[in-house]
Amino acid sequence: MYKDTYKGIFCTQLQTPVPKDDADVPQALHALAQILEQEHQNISAFILEPLIQCAGNMHFYGADFVKQATQMCQERGILVIFDEIAVGFGRTGSLFAYQQCGVKPDFLCLSKGITGGYLPLAVVLTSDAIYDKFYAPYAQNKSFLHSHSYTGNALACACANATLDLFGQGVVEQNKMLSRYIQTCMQEQLAPLKGVKNLRTCGMVFAFELEGYQGSKRLSLAVYQKGLEFGLLLRPLGNTIYFMPPYTISPDEVLKSVGAMAGIVRALT
Amino acid sequence: MYKDTYKGIFCTQLQTPVPKDDADVPQALHALAQILEQEHQNISAFILEPLIQCAGNMHFYGADFVKQATQMCQERGILVIFDEIAVGFGRTGSLFAYQQCGVKPDFLCLSKGITGGYLPLAVVLTSDAIYDKFYAPYAQNKSFLHSHSYTGNALACACANATLDLFGQGVVEQNKMLSRYIQTCMQEQLAPLKGVKNLRTCGMVFAFELEGYQGSKRLSLAVYQKGLEFGLLLRPLGNTIYFMPPYTISPDEVLKSVGAMAGIVRALT
Repeated sequence: MYKDTYKGIFCTQLQTPVPKDDADVPQALHALAQILEQEHQNISAFILEPLIQCAGNMHFYGADFVKQATQMCQERGILVIFDEIAVGFGRTGSLFAYQQCGVKPDFLCLSKGITGGYLPLAVVLTSDAIYDKFYAPYAQNKSFLHSHSYTGNALACACANATLDLFGQGVVEQNKMLSRYIQTCMQEQLAPLKGVKNLRTCGMVFAFELEGYQGSKRLSLAVYQKGLEFGLLLRPLGNTIYFMPPYTISPDEVLKSVGAMAGIVRALT
Repeated sequence: MYKDTYKGIFCTQLQTPVPKDDADVPQALHALAQILEQEHQNISAFILEPLIQCAGNMHFYGADFVKQATQMCQERGILVIFDEIAVGFGRTGSLFAYQQCGVKPDFLCLSKGITGGYLPLAVVLTSDAIYDKFYAPYAQNKSFLHSHSYTGNALACACANATLDLFGQGVVEQNKMLSRYIQTCMQEQLAPLKGVKNLRTCGMVFAFELEGYQGSKRLSLAVYQKGLEFGLLLRPLGNTIYFMPPYTISPDEVLKSVGAMAGIVRALT
């Protein structure tokens, strides 16, 4: 009667470094190769946020690393999962980041931009090969049945459909000019400032490090508070200040936002 | 440079049975006591859905088991987490199920009813003692910092506030009569039918098992499909048919729904 009351789940997470810059790609791939060599028989999947490690201080790494790391895993039969929750839907300059990398993941995780950020909705896409492994007549009892309370929430889906309609109207293409405009404004107003380091752009993601801050160590709070004074809501990651504006931002709002960032930097350094 | 690239997480899940009926309470508590005796030093928390194991075929178990199991864990310093995502917000007859059990959990997980089911929102409440362990000046670096993209989503919070206003107007009290009315209707129309077993009520949750179905084994699909013919959307768990109507259901809608359930039972047995 009380059999099967003890079940153990074992889960191991291996981490491999992403390259710090282009020169670092060979070393990062070497580290990944070592892990794959030693542990490949225990690894079911490799998870990567392609092109930008967002919560990892807006760390940009090239398509080359994404491509080679993906190929190394897929050659060994290790499934590749791309987390495009933050970088998907045009954020890196293409509809999906993986489209710049010359590889396809086995799973693609999407959210955020799919509703323009208005309501929570997430989607996981996979290949037919994987789908078919779980798609079977009910009697075979091998279907992958998983749902949760708000799966397919009607309001969130309506929001996503409206957002996808906008992407159908060429938003990603229009963003190219907008990205260049923001980049130019930041280059002109921020790059010359003392303390601004590593000013960088990837599509509609803009970031820089702030050095030389003289207050307590809690720079992110100071930037946030100073930002509010300038009418700008920023949420830095440590000393990394990033700007991921909505695609509807107007040229005038860009000028005001970049001007506010310059004001924050001047006030804090 | 590539230190700390290997991190292991070990997670074990122990399961203890819940009592099948009142007579089974001692045996279920005995099984829990054995697990606690053998493993207490490895157990950080005990998770229980109080009063009703919803996805476990609407399994009702008394307040006594919840109380004793909770006390056994808390006496050993094991934290108790009550999952009131389905049973909270009046579903079992009190605002929260634990209020009928004479114990307090260390964590209380809420969702679903908090927005009347219209939008996703979840809340975890805990005791001051646990909160204080994580609340500290930033410099001590022991704060529990966790957030996600839709934390505090404005629309979902507005929805929850509107729902909580309704609870402030005595919904749980009003439900007592409604629950009794539905129970009486089901007793009159369903209990006499062949195949209806274990007809039961807990607050605004009504359930029974359907026996003697003569089709293929996929009863839940047959009930779902037959339900649509009668204008009723049911989602049985195996051969357990349950009814968790919105608190706004009218007496006339109750009659129609129970009549539809009787029609489904007659059609399938």
